[in-house]
Amino acid sequence: MPDTPVHAPVSPAMIVRQSSPANLEFPFHTLSERLTPPGQFYVRSHFPVPELNAEEWRLEVGGLVGQPLCLTLADLQAMTPHTVTVTLECAGNSRSFLTPKVAGVAWDLGAVSTAEWTGVPLSAVLERAGLQAGAREVVLCGADRGCLDEPAKTPGIIAYERSLPLNKAQTDVLLAYAMNGEPLTPQHGYPVRAIVPGWYGMASVKWLTGICVTDTPFQGFFQTLDYSYWESVGSLSPQMTPLSVMQAKAQIARPAPGETVAAGKPYVIMGAAWTGEAKIIRVEISTDGGQTWAEAELTDPAEAHVWRRWRYLWHAPDPSGTVTLLARATDSSGQTQPTKHTPERGKYMITFPLPIAVMVE
Amino acid sequence: MPDTPVHAPVSPAMIVRQSSPANLEFPFHTLSERLTPPGQFYVRSHFPVPELNAEEWRLEVGGLVGQPLCLTLADLQAMTPHTVTVTLECAGNSRSFLTPKVAGVAWDLGAVSTAEWTGVPLSAVLERAGLQAGAREVVLCGADRGCLDEPAKTPGIIAYERSLPLNKAQTDVLLAYAMNGEPLTPQHGYPVRAIVPGWYGMASVKWLTGICVTDTPFQGFFQTLDYSYWESVGSLSPQMTPLSVMQAKAQIARPAPGETVAAGKPYVIMGAAWTGEAKIIRVEISTDGGQTWAEAELTDPAEAHVWRRWRYLWHAPDPSGTVTLLARATDSSGQTQPTKHTPERGKYMITFPLPIAVMVE
Repeated sequence: MPDTPVHAPVSPAMIVRQSSPANLEFPFHTLSERLTPPGQFYVRSHFPVPELNAEEWRLEVGGLVGQPLCLTLADLQAMTPHTVTVTLECAGNSRSFLTPKVAGVAWDLGAVSTAEWTGVPLSAVLERAGLQAGAREVVLCGADRGCLDEPAKTPGIIAYERSLPLNKAQTDVLLAYAMNGEPLTPQHGYPVRAIVPGWYGMASVKWLTGICVTDTPFQGFFQTLDYSYWESVGSLSPQMTPLSVMQAKAQIARPAPGETVAAGKPYVIMGAAWTGEAKIIRVEISTDGGQTWAEAELTDPAEAHVWRRWRYLWHAPDPSGTVTLLARATDSSGQTQPTKHTPERGKYMITFPLPIAVMVE
Repeated sequence: MPDTPVHAPVSPAMIVRQSSPANLEFPFHTLSERLTPPGQFYVRSHFPVPELNAEEWRLEVGGLVGQPLCLTLADLQAMTPHTVTVTLECAGNSRSFLTPKVAGVAWDLGAVSTAEWTGVPLSAVLERAGLQAGAREVVLCGADRGCLDEPAKTPGIIAYERSLPLNKAQTDVLLAYAMNGEPLTPQHGYPVRAIVPGWYGMASVKWLTGICVTDTPFQGFFQTLDYSYWESVGSLSPQMTPLSVMQAKAQIARPAPGETVAAGKPYVIMGAAWTGEAKIIRVEISTDGGQTWAEAELTDPAEAHVWRRWRYLWHAPDPSGTVTLLARATDSSGQTQPTKHTPERGKYMITFPLPIAVMVE
């Protein structure tokens, strides 16, 4: 890996939601291969890209560990590498479909992408450090930091930090130094980021420089004021709960919203579907705005943590007009998409079937 | 105790900060006796007063207990009564002294009061129910409920709920059914409220109808979005932390802000000072805007959880003009008041010495 980051060009195909810091959307209607094309994986940033280089980069592992560690990139790369294919979705993906409008980056369909990640299991690093009794969470600390204003105002300058419960941290989390066989680009967390399979993207902390094991639930800004929702447990009022596992969701890539489809002709509707800790087992399509549903064909194998592309042969109706298409996924845990967005989820976890209106002519 | 609540008149001396729901301030400049006069104890409400009567009222005790309980008021009153004198201060008291202005009820000096409370120790009720292994917190649930709008927007209709760590719940928390020897008035939580000595008032849940023992930190609205502050621990960014223990603070009752004092004459400056889990040991006064400090005389005994009144004989200067008076408390743990408000405390824990400007003529 080179000492200085590779400034891989961002594809001009990317949809710019915010230029500084960069918040870029994969043009979802171009979905073709299972792996998102290089330079088109969506980018979510909260602060400017921190200037890190591989030579000086260190990963500090502390808190409730037996032996604090300070690892170099060479230390990580000397450990047994693992490669996994993982789909990441931003928890605010499809936010532009919410009415009324809510605060936050107005993601359309493309804050979701898939890549092959290579790195070292977090569990191997935790094992090397050893855990003290009472360890409960693992806080992942990014080098990116700054200040946000209203509506979600940070308490001064803060770093991007998110925690994982210990059982997830010890299961399948990767400390990735490569993406699709290449070093990470600066916008994707160079030189090392976490990859948390099955969880919304906010958990996959980029520019990782610190790991802190704690005995109390972490309550940082991005775990509470941001990236949380209200969940009701028992008879108590709703509680602020950090976002975690991705929910089952199918999205239509083609036709694109507003696309014109030839009346009376066959059209292959296609897209992808993903979920959190289960596997996608069914995708259904409605071409009448949700009155009736028909099963789509899944063209990718069922694999945990990776989206499955799907297709559905539609005979577009003969009379011209507007048609609303919907897709709906079901996973192996029995979870299917809700018909409506629940207010408790706020500006996150937007998984109702998204209406794609097309013109039939 | 009568079946229907006693609608004790609110003293016309009270300062109305909000009429519905009632948020009423004790006129602090009238401070005289150690116990706040009847009808003048400050009132903090989030929602309308719930309609409860002693006959139908029940206290449900559940969650991680050995035996869920459903107690009547007669059940509580059959247990050994305890009486304690406790000062409560709203965590937002003195908010009107903050610049720039912040959201929330604009309390001046009077969101603090002292009363004698009679009831049953929470520990006795928890002992009767028994605790399961893993019990960690005790959530106190009020019957008051509703919806708040921006800036702090509740997730739909919620109840007023706050939790305590188990060790505090088992130490000195009272389930009070009487205040100064009389049944609670509706505005003070009739028929039963919690009294949490040494903690800001938000912990002393009124209209108590539920107690829920949990194994995870409670994350309800009034424990997170409201009544919290940012606290830094170790090298991590600040974490959202529920407000808890009152901080050391002295307030000047007389002269009142803007009062005219006779030049060249003696004047007895007086007020009260309080703190959380320690005892007030010293109050100092500055009559030159904070350049020099002199010790005041404490006129009440040092007692945990109750304010100490104090006095200081001031010789008002001869040349007329504006003078800024300050008071500063120190407690037995060594805690003294900070010179400035720290931004991490937001709109709460306002404990810098409050400038009281008076006219000397």
